[in-house]
Amino acid sequence: MVSEKIRQALAGSSAIRAMFREGKELAAEVGAENVYDFSLGNPATPAPDSLNQAIREILDETDPLTVHGYMDNSGYEDVRQAVAENLNRRFQTDFDAHNVIMTVGAAGGLNIIFKTILDAGSEVLAFVPYFGEYKSYAANFDAKLVEVAPDYETFWPDLEDFRSKISPATRAVIVNTPNNPTGVVYPAGIMEQIAAVLLEKEKEYGADIYLISDEPYRELVYDGAEEDFLTKYYHNTLVGYSFSKSLSLPGERIGYVVVPNEASDSELLIDGMNVSNRTLGFVNAPSLMQKAVARCLEEKTNIDFYDANRKLLYENLTKFGFFCIRPQGAFYLWMKSPLKDEEAFVRLAKKYNLILVKGGAFACPGYVRIAYCVSKDMLMRALPAFEKLAAECKLTPSDEAAHCL
Amino acid sequence: MVSEKIRQALAGSSAIRAMFREGKELAAEVGAENVYDFSLGNPATPAPDSLNQAIREILDETDPLTVHGYMDNSGYEDVRQAVAENLNRRFQTDFDAHNVIMTVGAAGGLNIIFKTILDAGSEVLAFVPYFGEYKSYAANFDAKLVEVAPDYETFWPDLEDFRSKISPATRAVIVNTPNNPTGVVYPAGIMEQIAAVLLEKEKEYGADIYLISDEPYRELVYDGAEEDFLTKYYHNTLVGYSFSKSLSLPGERIGYVVVPNEASDSELLIDGMNVSNRTLGFVNAPSLMQKAVARCLEEKTNIDFYDANRKLLYENLTKFGFFCIRPQGAFYLWMKSPLKDEEAFVRLAKKYNLILVKGGAFACPGYVRIAYCVSKDMLMRALPAFEKLAAECKLTPSDEAAHCL
Repeated sequence: MVSEKIRQALAGSSAIRAMFREGKELAAEVGAENVYDFSLGNPATPAPDSLNQAIREILDETDPLTVHGYMDNSGYEDVRQAVAENLNRRFQTDFDAHNVIMTVGAAGGLNIIFKTILDAGSEVLAFVPYFGEYKSYAANFDAKLVEVAPDYETFWPDLEDFRSKISPATRAVIVNTPNNPTGVVYPAGIMEQIAAVLLEKEKEYGADIYLISDEPYRELVYDGAEEDFLTKYYHNTLVGYSFSKSLSLPGERIGYVVVPNEASDSELLIDGMNVSNRTLGFVNAPSLMQKAVARCLEEKTNIDFYDANRKLLYENLTKFGFFCIRPQGAFYLWMKSPLKDEEAFVRLAKKYNLILVKGGAFACPGYVRIAYCVSKDMLMRALPAFEKLAAECKLTPSDEAAHCL
Repeated sequence: MVSEKIRQALAGSSAIRAMFREGKELAAEVGAENVYDFSLGNPATPAPDSLNQAIREILDETDPLTVHGYMDNSGYEDVRQAVAENLNRRFQTDFDAHNVIMTVGAAGGLNIIFKTILDAGSEVLAFVPYFGEYKSYAANFDAKLVEVAPDYETFWPDLEDFRSKISPATRAVIVNTPNNPTGVVYPAGIMEQIAAVLLEKEKEYGADIYLISDEPYRELVYDGAEEDFLTKYYHNTLVGYSFSKSLSLPGERIGYVVVPNEASDSELLIDGMNVSNRTLGFVNAPSLMQKAVARCLEEKTNIDFYDANRKLLYENLTKFGFFCIRPQGAFYLWMKSPLKDEEAFVRLAKKYNLILVKGGAFACPGYVRIAYCVSKDMLMRALPAFEKLAAECKLTPSDEAAHCL
């Protein structure tokens, strides 16, 4: 006997995870080397050597009772201070340890933010397409996810639709730039307009509306673009960060939340998030990994690795005749389905051993997501499969794209 | 602006964590060496050397993409298989990898069990006194915690009260033996009677009632008692385990849930718990630590360390005239408050720099919990403070207890 909510969740389970499993099943059938799995945001470039070295040093230098022991629910004070100082240096912010709460990844972070600010019936706005888990996280607190349409040229939010969707029940808006699944990075002008709408609506309703910045891909920007940090645009910005992508640690579940002093009721929010961290069952972020990431805050993942994949994939897919949104950040490519029903297209792609994720999983049917955080070798071997897929879809090869990037 | 539930949670926040903070504040005031902090279940005996050695070996031997990468939400298959085989060998069970879900500690495990089986309005029975967080976990899913009275001689459950509290809304009963906060271990006869009542009520209502065994203290039993594993008593038993105490890893948040095949709808439960692990934001148990504990399943914590503390504390407190429940497991001593108002007694104890936790935090006023997972040195230094506290309470010293253990 399972709960009614879980019964529903099982019926509509994660399409990303489903494709990940399908990819593994296909690999068992035809051999792993013949499957081109672009389903999961699982980095194919390893954690920097310094991370494992930091772990060894911590084990050598530190009392095991400290390394593996309880600390405050918000995390080790020295780790939080190090995160605050790193952000201050990079983004001219003014945080200290008390503004930072270490979390069990960004997923844990978003859940403690949601628990702290959402009541049953609260509304959270998300810009389509969005990471499907947002809906589950809102449902954990009986809140409702309200979808805002994109501009289909740029995949920036449609600001008029955004304004029209804000209601007195709106407690928060989630923004995710660099974006999963589109790879789009919002320019400063868009962030300023989002902030202006929020300020106007806060005033109109006399209530706080929090902007939640989900930024696991913060550092993954290309073409010389600068990393952005969103607290400067809007006073009520709450940040959820993960080291999953920036240090290639997705399995370790380590990240943090930032609550700036200028956020309304910031002290109450911080206290609430500590309680949420505890009562949701996280208790605290994994202790050894807290200490390890604190020693690697200046490290960068291998951006060139992803950038090479990005160029190779975008150039070739466009050349084959696919319509793609040019990726500017993260490690996803957002491609229009040549078939009206993108689920049929995903099935067709699987015939060529290509594992893609349907846009419907991101509330945006008609597109597919290609996670190019894969080995270059696999990507190279996958290109002929994409070419055959394009041919079966009767797409016209074009040389135009080769010069786009 | 915080949610209504969090506002309430902040008002009634964890007394254990509050005392932990009070202890740290007092330490800042009078010096850490002069504070006798018995508030938190934070092991004072370190993780076995083999644990850190296992971490080093895993880092040396394994591809970092595997060690720190995503895996199925239930955890690494080889880790789950190792856990299953370890349990089978020790407890004559018949599990395989699919019965085991790796979790973010026991707190994470209980939350994924609760999310999977509880609807709003469901009732969960807990035996007083119980770990206060159970109430928060049930509230996460709008379920109600229903309290069952103890027999105050033994601190086993009052079975008649237990029977009377089961209703058609009852979905689960939590049992925690060895027990936090009493240190009591339920004998087989009690478990058999609990199981008989549950079977009777399942039949009466034609519905499943799950027995949730929260067993972070499974291995911490004294006086030659054998470790017990509860699935043998009742078909619908779900197990939540943590390595926090058995390997002294409370900060690492690593544990597992077991769903036996004989549980009703076991496959649906397993699928539901995987979804819950993902959607509650845990995603998966920390990856490196999964691999590390899998190599240390045969390790034992330093039981003799706790046993020595147990004897020393029980003998002396009883000699000083305190009324204590003789601890048989875990690392807590449950003591009757000499003052009617145990909160006043906790305040009085603090005058002697003794940090205890009020029984009210476990739904059982009139008692206090003393966590003796502390250094022997601190315990020795604390004894004179306890003696003075007894004198101030006008207790009569007695030699009787010295021969009890």
